[in-house]
Order: sequence, then structure tokens, then C-alpha cells
Amino acid sequence: MLVIGELINGMYKAVGKAIKDKDKSVIQDLAKRQVNSGANMLDVNTGPASSEPKNDIKWLIGTIQEVLDVPLSIDSTKPDVIEEGLKIVKKKPLINSTSADDERLNILVPLAKRYNAQLIALTTDKKGIPRDRNERSELALKIVSSCLEHDFPIEDLYIDPVVLPINIAQPQGIEVLESIREFKLLSDPSPKTVVGLSNVSQGTKNRSLINRTYLVMAVGAGLSAAILDPLDRELMDALITAELLLNKNIYCDSYLDAYKKK
Amino acid sequence: MLVIGELINGMYKAVGKAIKDKDKSVIQDLAKRQVNSGANMLDVNTGPASSEPKNDIKWLIGTIQEVLDVPLSIDSTKPDVIEEGLKIVKKKPLINSTSADDERLNILVPLAKRYNAQLIALTTDKKGIPRDRNERSELALKIVSSCLEHDFPIEDLYIDPVVLPINIAQPQGIEVLESIREFKLLSDPSPKTVVGLSNVSQGTKNRSLINRTYLVMAVGAGLSAAILDPLDRELMDALITAELLLNKNIYCDSYLDAYKKK
Repeated sequence: MLVIGELINGMYKAVGKAIKDKDKSVIQDLAKRQVNSGANMLDVNTGPASSEPKNDIKWLIGTIQEVLDVPLSIDSTKPDVIEEGLKIVKKKPLINSTSADDERLNILVPLAKRYNAQLIALTTDKKGIPRDRNERSELALKIVSSCLEHDFPIEDLYIDPVVLPINIAQPQGIEVLESIREFKLLSDPSPKTVVGLSNVSQGTKNRSLINRTYLVMAVGAGLSAAILDPLDRELMDALITAELLLNKNIYCDSYLDAYKKK
Repeated sequence: MLVIGELINGMYKAVGKAIKDKDKSVIQDLAKRQVNSGANMLDVNTGPASSEPKNDIKWLIGTIQEVLDVPLSIDSTKPDVIEEGLKIVKKKPLINSTSADDERLNILVPLAKRYNAQLIALTTDKKGIPRDRNERSELALKIVSSCLEHDFPIEDLYIDPVVLPINIAQPQGIEVLESIREFKLLSDPSPKTVVGLSNVSQGTKNRSLINRTYLVMAVGAGLSAAILDPLDRELMDALITAELLLNKNIYCDSYLDAYKKK
């Protein structure tokens, strides 16, 4: 599974301060720790407080690429900020994200194609968050259609069924899990699936336990990728074990160490 | 989900000794601790060393029923031993187990019906352990047919797709998970499903982690019951959290305590 480290995000206090102060060591250290813990890709988000997001995204990407050769997920709501990032990434990037609205799809799908980037598409639109698996599948189908229309490769598409906090939207948990299964049937080749895992436990008192339990169920349902905190050791151990049990890693007595990067 | 405590089994040294010495306190303590940790039912097995299994099963059941009002799973390969247990249980029991062989089905299905017991049926036959989900579904269909033929209620049937140790039969893990999903489609009403969870980690070095990760995936696939060690706190926390995420328990900040028995 593709593990996308979520920690380089200006909404976190230390990261926001590092962006403001242009303190490379904080960012580079956090990037390295995530990769060393098993992240295959790093999400990069300047955060809502950035007054110069185009400059900040370039600085963040440049800072990480000085020390690591890792693909990046460029995380912004603004296409022009995303494009600044796309211009300088060294590895095939991921755009995080488009919604299922036509205005967004018609900008972001061609942008992803132009830069040979992968693309996350959320199953949301102007009507808001989908209420069940059926609404999610309808939006997912619209996303797939848009990609076909723009001749964007479905193999590079990650559809996000939108995980919601369990404490305020409890019935949605199973809807998202079923959506992960259903999205695979939408086209051949199938679109990939991704979740923003930490959302599920927002505001709860057992965040790590809830995160890893949900991740294991999502992996069991066939999830392709997750944006998560790779420094959560128990979460990563659960993920490695789930993949073992699904026969994606080969068993050995020391499999936990074997499948950790370092 | 139905949690069946696995610890009253003569193959465990302390239990085997207690059976031999007729030491009630060991058995009663173990029974109470399992129920207090969340077991809804207790498996009772005299173990392979018992020289008088009919007497021993009666003694075990009587000993537990002196202190607890809990349903029991009578675990033996011998129909006459099972029947001794069925005669004295106070709550609706579970027979553990029949195979899918005609000779076994033709004895155990009528026995379960006669005593109004539930029944576990393993998807194994003389040819041995099934090699994939298709062989499991074939045997499951044979089991369902036998129950229909004997007018045994399908609601009382638990089909066990046979979990194997991950270190020697790694490809079977996902086959069992898919079987849990597929068995539900065999008839309407659906048969229930059960696994002997601890088998998955036999001989491995991370037993608790492997057990709870597999359980969470199985619960996500719709598992109805598991025979497991309810004293494994992390296992029970994972189970409670999985059921929460599937909207089977209602969220509150203290949900872990709320869904523990004591």
C-alpha cells in the first residue's frame, strides 16, 4: 500500500513556524523521520496561514528534495499553488486534490495530465459530503468519466471516499469501507482508492486505536493508499501485519523489522 | 459479535491438571475472568488427555454452571461426549463441531436439532483442508443443504471457514476472509460465520498483534462469532473499536469502558 506521510502541513504549529522562519532543519528532519518510518510519499501543505503559498510550496518542496529522493503529494485547494509545485518536483507527484465538481475537474485533470502527475479526487461536490455509498459511487463515476474524457490514465487516479469523524458521523464509517470495495468495480482498469485516515478519529479520545483499527478494515477492503501519521508505530505495525495477512508481504518471524524501512 | 472464550480447554496445562484433580476453583476463576473480559459464551473442551471425557465434560459444565449463567460451546470430536454435555446445559448451547462429511453431518445436525443447540460446521472433509474460497464455499453449501434436509434452522448454524497459521499457509488468510463474505450469500436467511482466531498466529512471534489484526479484518468482512482469548485486552479493545467503526456500538468518549462487561 502507498503510505503518504501527513506531517508536513502548515496547520501543525511547529511546521507553520518553520515555514514562516524558513527553518529547513525542522522540515528536513520531519521528512526523513516519516520516510524512515515507512512513508513512500510525503504530503506537502503550506497550511491555511501561509500568506505566500506559491513561494512557500516551492520552498517546502525544495527543502525536502535537498535531502530526500521521495515522491511528493502537493496538497492545496489552489490550482496555481499546485502548479508551482508541479514545476519543480523531481519524482512523479500526486495532486491532492480535486473535488467532483466540473469546474475543479476541468482544471485539475488536465493539469495532472500535463505534468504526468497522479491525482486524488474527493467524492464531494457543491452539495457537500455524500450521505452514503450510493452517493459516493455516483460522484466516483463522474470523476472516472471526467478522466476518460480528458484522456487521463485511470491507473493514476486515486478516489477518496471521504472519511468523517466517527464521533459525529458514525454511520459513514461502513459506507466508506463499502465504497472502497465498490470503486474497484467502476472501470477496468480500476481507479485506486485513498483515505485521509486521521479524520476518522478527530475529536475522539482513542485516536491511535481508532485510526489503526479503521486502517486495517480499509486495507482488508482493498484500499490502495492512505494519508496518515507514519510516526505512529502501532499504526505502521498494524498496517504491515494486515498486508502480511493479505499475503502481500512474505511471512518471516521478524516480518515487522523486515518491512520497516530502517 | 459473539465472543466465545477459548481458555477452558484441557490442552492447557493448568486446565488439564484442574480437570484431573477436580479442582473447581481453577475452572470457575477462569470462566469468570473470561466473562468479565467480554466473553458471551465459553468453549468447554476436556482436552486430548482426558481418559473419561464423558465424565469430565459433565464435571466441567457443572462446575461452570455453579457460578455462572453463561451459554456454553461443547467442544469435542465425539458425539457421545457432546451429548452428555447437551443433557445438562442450562442455556441454549453450541456444538463445536461437525465437519462437512456426510457421516458427521448425519449424526451432529440431528443431535443439534434434538437438543435445540446451535452448531459449528467446519468446511473440511475427508479430503482435508480446503485450498481456496471455492472449495470452502462448496463445502459450506453442502453443510447448508444438510441442515435444510434435516430441518435444522440456518439461523443456528455457524460455518467455520478454517483459519490456518499464517506462517505455514499464508495464502489462506485472504481466502478465509473472502469466504466469510461469500457464506452470507449462500442462503436466506444466511448462515452465521465463526473462526478459531488463535490458529492464525500459531507458531509466530507476534501472536497478539496478528490475532487482533486478523480479527479486525474478519469483523470488517462480516464475521458473526470468534473463538478467542478474551483475556487479551488489546484484542478485545480492537474488537470493540471495530464494531464501533461499523456502527454496531454507539460512540461515546468512553466507549471502551462502556462496552466492557465489568
